[in-house]
Formats: sequence, structure tokens, C-alpha cells
Amino acid sequence: MTETLKIAIAGLGAVGASVARNIIDKKADHFQKTGKNIEIIAVSARSKKDRGFNMTGMDIKENAVDLAHGNADIIVEAIGGDGGVALDLVTAALKAKKHVVTANKALLAKHGEALAELAENNNVRLRYEAAIAGAIPIVKVLREGLAANRVSRIYGILNGTCNYIMTEMEETGADFDKTLIEAQRLGYAEADPALDIGGFDAAHKLTLLSAIAFGCAVNHDATYIEGVEKITAFDIMATKEAGYRIKLLGIATLENGNILQRVHPCLIPDKSSIAKVDGVLNAIVTDCDYAGQSLCIGRGAGGDPTASAVVADILDIARGAAPSAVFGAGRSGRAEYNFLSVQERIGKYFLRLTLSDKPGSVAGVTEILAALGISLETVRQYGRNPTGNVPVILTTHETKEKTMNEALVKISKLAACEAEPLMIRVFRP
Amino acid sequence: MTETLKIAIAGLGAVGASVARNIIDKKADHFQKTGKNIEIIAVSARSKKDRGFNMTGMDIKENAVDLAHGNADIIVEAIGGDGGVALDLVTAALKAKKHVVTANKALLAKHGEALAELAENNNVRLRYEAAIAGAIPIVKVLREGLAANRVSRIYGILNGTCNYIMTEMEETGADFDKTLIEAQRLGYAEADPALDIGGFDAAHKLTLLSAIAFGCAVNHDATYIEGVEKITAFDIMATKEAGYRIKLLGIATLENGNILQRVHPCLIPDKSSIAKVDGVLNAIVTDCDYAGQSLCIGRGAGGDPTASAVVADILDIARGAAPSAVFGAGRSGRAEYNFLSVQERIGKYFLRLTLSDKPGSVAGVTEILAALGISLETVRQYGRNPTGNVPVILTTHETKEKTMNEALVKISKLAACEAEPLMIRVFRP
Repeated sequence: MTETLKIAIAGLGAVGASVARNIIDKKADHFQKTGKNIEIIAVSARSKKDRGFNMTGMDIKENAVDLAHGNADIIVEAIGGDGGVALDLVTAALKAKKHVVTANKALLAKHGEALAELAENNNVRLRYEAAIAGAIPIVKVLREGLAANRVSRIYGILNGTCNYIMTEMEETGADFDKTLIEAQRLGYAEADPALDIGGFDAAHKLTLLSAIAFGCAVNHDATYIEGVEKITAFDIMATKEAGYRIKLLGIATLENGNILQRVHPCLIPDKSSIAKVDGVLNAIVTDCDYAGQSLCIGRGAGGDPTASAVVADILDIARGAAPSAVFGAGRSGRAEYNFLSVQERIGKYFLRLTLSDKPGSVAGVTEILAALGISLETVRQYGRNPTGNVPVILTTHETKEKTMNEALVKISKLAACEAEPLMIRVFRP
Repeated sequence: MTETLKIAIAGLGAVGASVARNIIDKKADHFQKTGKNIEIIAVSARSKKDRGFNMTGMDIKENAVDLAHGNADIIVEAIGGDGGVALDLVTAALKAKKHVVTANKALLAKHGEALAELAENNNVRLRYEAAIAGAIPIVKVLREGLAANRVSRIYGILNGTCNYIMTEMEETGADFDKTLIEAQRLGYAEADPALDIGGFDAAHKLTLLSAIAFGCAVNHDATYIEGVEKITAFDIMATKEAGYRIKLLGIATLENGNILQRVHPCLIPDKSSIAKVDGVLNAIVTDCDYAGQSLCIGRGAGGDPTASAVVADILDIARGAAPSAVFGAGRSGRAEYNFLSVQERIGKYFLRLTLSDKPGSVAGVTEILAALGISLETVRQYGRNPTGNVPVILTTHETKEKTMNEALVKISKLAACEAEPLMIRVFRP
């Protein structure tokens, strides 16, 4: 590698433009830390508008994939999307033996295995610190900082939009739809919010975290996904009274060779550290055999925090980072794990039912639960709601999710059951 | 470097023994991650008692310094102390062109500059992840994960013993001395607690954090140090009522080329994340220009968490970690900063006074403050204490510490001042 490290940036949205500004503005700092001059030689973007940095002397490509065939040492992919141009560019770059730095969680969750193999076979780096939890350097922490440990569980608040909405609903008492509109107005939610509120964005990140933490394959199909759309202001109020807060968590566990990957709303005891992480922040907890439990909190999105992670990867490559496996372990000799369905989960559950205000309504429900061997921790019936029905909140002792689902099917069919029941998993931090 | 990486461990206390067990028990994991066999070839310890690992085949040295002249590639220094054998061993090892991994904050705070120069001149690594905040990989996070940032401030709870005592005093209402004895009984405080409760241990760590974060010299003499010994149960109760918690913080700030390093008890707003970090945990907050604010929480001490960090450094070296500067920036071309005295601090202050219960007592105090231009935010007089005096709590608006100290000297001389006043700095997270 020469004394100058040449960078090409594909995509000049908030992240790509911030990466460019960081590299240009901090040239002296970066030289001091790496002994290399880092220089942007080419970019590609959909429009040529001003992005707050001087493009003079940079090669501007219409087609991002052309960057893979230029003189850059590192290609920064900041286009996004789980296929298309992003996939074509990353594939072409790795084949051309160029290092790739990307913030693209969707691409890696879907094509991570193939791209990692390509990078490892071509002896180049594929780095993606920015793909998970923005400014929190969790990829480096897991891969290097906690490398002496076996990780038994990793979980976190991986989507700032959902966390913002849950926090706001609790603070204002407003319902989901209204809060989402406000979040969109403030720029905390996308115009099309499905990827965030449906849990899909968090799931991409969780799939990658699981692979790094456990050294398993990147297996996105194995990740159970449930969003926050069904959470109501009533749920938040009722769980708060019971000493819980509702958060969307991504959770990956490894027990006896079995991995369970899941993203869904959780009831978290309000005294726990992660329950107190509010607004758009991200947070990740790791349970390790030597290090014990650690928690990192930081900004999960936005141009500058994401650029912080992209440039950290570039600086690592500039310093001559050793060719470690793209995910936790190399492809060869990797442990074979079994991926479990969320139906195998054992834990406590919260049920919100809407029953008709008649004698025997609650009895009908408790009989179903008793018959399936589901033991209750608490039962609380609230006063009539505006439709004349009564909300009933149940929490169970530990039981298998499969059994809970059987119960839900039966409860839904009761004449007294006036609306689709909602089940939320209780999480033990 | 060969396929086998040979380790010598000096000191087999809780940390050294845990490092040995980790290396032996996880040999296959470590090979999978680094492509190297990591093997302990030599140890030194004061006694030959069983430490839970098999020493067969290891060279056992009486004198730790002899390890520097053996065949090891990496010397692990787990002896401790800011000079003596630890200094002799590390110096000899670096001169013999061996990598050194240490958990010794006292040694590095005192001799960090000279040892870093020695390591860099001999082109070997001097790694010390375990020296700061145990299992939290903050050295790596700062040096690599946040390398794209300028850090303006780093602060944290760096001593678990002090944090445990402050937490317990709040929860039980017991006074300092009683809580310290209980902490000693439970193994959370040393038999000689001076290094911890006097703030010295936290100061060693803060000095190192400052050097990494800002790229300045390791300048322990510039660190202001004040312990928690003078905090009473009354202070904790009174500050809690006012919405604060008392924590011992290490704080390093960089503003306009001026660095201020300090360790002292702080009043922290109880809503802030770091105020909620309880018990023996450590926590570190970084304020960065691109990444924004991040917080890491984890175990700061103990054999296994510390070993997690020591072995992470070994694995980094095994992977062929690039020869980066020992602290934030290389010796050459390092920015020249000015180190400020804590007298230059500008902020709010909490004063606990014990005044005689006579007319004009409070007026005497407020006149002194007014004459020095110190404006008050709150004044609260409590009922008589058992000695017949009245505790008075004042909080000020922002003022310079130098002015506060002038006021304290004058207040102490008042006839109505019945006990040494206590000043605690109010911290803005």
C-alpha cells in the first residue's frame, strides 16, 4: 500500500457526504493516526448539487459500479438497498480486489455470506461498522474488544425510530398513528416507515450481530420479526403501572448449540439500564463469560454518527488492519449451530384482551389457559372502554411460546373476545 | 511471527491466573479467530499454589524480570505497582523487543511517556486495555472505533469501590466509615483503601484516557485529585432532594487547546444516564464531533473482566495488529496543549456549611459570596443537628473555582462557621 490511500464514495446522501467532509476536513488528524494521506479520488451520486465539500479533481461517475474499475483502494458503498446497484458495486469491487466499507445492513443481512466469502477469497477487507448502531463501534467491540469471550446473548435497541415512537407515546399518552406522523414531521421517521416500524431494519442488524457474536452463518431467514405497529397507548400505560416499559428489542441467544434470533416489542423491567434508553438512541447489551454484562449507548443513525463509523473502518484499513474474518469466525472450521424458531422460546408473556362486559368473560379465558397448563402471575380488569368492552391484562409465569399461541387461537374464538388479543413478550435483562 | 505465539505471564493473582485459564481453556476459539496457537511458556509468581490451571511444561521463574530474557513473544505484566519489579520487567521486555500487555494503570500514568517511546522505538506493542475500566474496551473504542472524531470531553465512573460506597450510602443512609467497612468485608474495597477512596486509582485511569482521547502527553501531575472521604450521609440526602446524585467522576476536557484533567466527587442530575450507574460498575462517556455522545457501562475490576481485556490485547497482537501509537498520537508531530489548573474551572458549586444557630449566621456567608460576585441558585437551612448547629446548603450559579476557594477561606474564618465547609462541584453531563 502506498503512502496515499485512495477512496471512492458511491452515494452522496447524508452519510456519503459526511464521510467526504470528514476525510477532507481531518486530513492532518488522519495522517497523524495512520501515517497515510487519505484522498477521495472519485464519487458517484444521482445529482451534482453542492454537498458541503469541494469536488474539484474528483472523478464523478454516473454509474456507481464504474468506481470498482477505477484506481481507488477502498470503495465506500453508501447507496443502500439489499440488491441492485449496491450489490453490483460491492461484488465488482471485491472481485477487483478492492476493500469495501459499507453502511448497508440490508445488503449484508441478505448477501453477507456470499460477500464475505468473496472478500476472504480475494484477501480484501469488507467492513461494515456503520451498518449496526451507527456511532457505537459494536462490530469492533465484539470482533476484537470482547474476542476473549464466549457470548451467550446479545440484545439491544437497534432502531431509533421505534424507540422514539415508544418514548413519545409514553410521554404524551398519544396513540401510535399520531406519534408516527409527528415523528415523520420531525424527520425521525421515513415517509415510508415500514422498514423501521415493522422491525425489519432492526432485524437486519440483529442478524449481523448474531453472526459476529456467535461465529455462526449470517442467517436472516432464521430471524423472527415483529414490529411495533400494534402497541397502543393503553398498552404502554398498563405496562408502566406494572413496572415495565415497552421497547422494540433485537435479541440473539446461544444455548447448548441452539441460536434464537428475534426482533419484537418487549416488556422490560423499568429499573434496568436498557429500559431507560430513550428517544432515538441505540443501545446494545452483551452477556459474556469473562467480561460479564456490558452496555453501550449512542446515536444509531444520522449522517455524522454513521460517517464516524465508516471513516473508522477506513482508518483501520489505512493502519493495515489484519485480515480478520468478515464476521465472527472464518468460513472454514466454523461451528455448526442449530437455529430455533421463536415458538421454542420459554418466558413470561403479557396479554391484552378486549372482552365483552358480561359474566364469565374472564373465566372463559382463564379456563383455556389453565387447560394448557399456563399459570398466571397477574390478572387485571380495567373499566369499560368507549365501545363498552373491558380491557383485561394478564401476565403469565414462564411458558413455551408454542403453548401461548395455541391459547391465543382459542381465546380469539371465544364469543366474549371482542378484538384481536395482543401478546407481548416479557424480557429479562 | 510463527504459527505459535509464546506468552509469559508475570504475576498470578486474580488477573494473571484468569488470563492463564482463558488462554488454556479457549485455545481452539483463539486459533479460530487469529490463526495462531497461543501458548503460555513461562510464568512468575510469589508462591507455587494451585491457580486452577495446569502449569506442566511452563518455565517458572522466581524473578519476573527474567521473563524478559526468555523466548516469549509477549510479556503479560500482572504484578502491579507504579515502579519496582513491574517497571523493571516492562522496560527490559520492551528493550528485548517483546510485546507487552499490562493492566497496570499506576505504572503507565507515571512512566507512560518513557515506556511508549521505548515501545515505539523498538517497534513492539505496549497494550493496556485492562488498565482502564476492566471489561469495557474503551482504549480500543477511543483509539480505533472513534478515530474519525475529535473528542472534546471524556468522563466517567472509573473506580468501582467509590461507586459502590456512594450507592450504598444512598440506599442505606449509613455514613462513610461504616459503609467502607462493609465494602471491605464484601471484598469491594481493599484492606488499605486509600488508593481507591482517595481518587488516585481513578486519576491514573483518567490521565491515560486523556492522552488517548486528545493525543496529548501522559501528564499525571496535571490531574487534580480529590477523593470521596468527606462525603456524608447528610450530603447524599440533601443533594438527592435537590435532584442530584453524588458520584466520583474522572473528567478530561479539551477546549481551545486547553486540557483540564480532574477527579473529584460530583453532583450529577439524577435523570442523566451516568447518574443511574450503580454499585461496582464503571461507565465512560465520550463527547465527539461526529459520533456525538456515547456511553459504555461494564465491570471495571475483578479477575475475569480484567483478563477479558488482557487477552483481547494478546489476540490483537496475534492477528498482527498494526503498529499504532501507544497513546492517541505518535510522539512526533503531536499537538502541544496547555494543561489547566482546576482553579480555572467554571461551573456551579454545592456548599455544605455547618453554622451556629444564631441570628446573622447565614447573612455572614451570603455577604462574603455577594462581595465576590458569586450568585446563588438555592439556599436551604436545615433544622438543628445533634450538636446544636444548623446545616446550610447553598448552590451557586456558574462561577470560577478560584473565586469559590477565596470565598471558602473567608467563610471558614467566620465565627459562625462551626465545621470545615465542604464544596462539591456540580457536573453537567
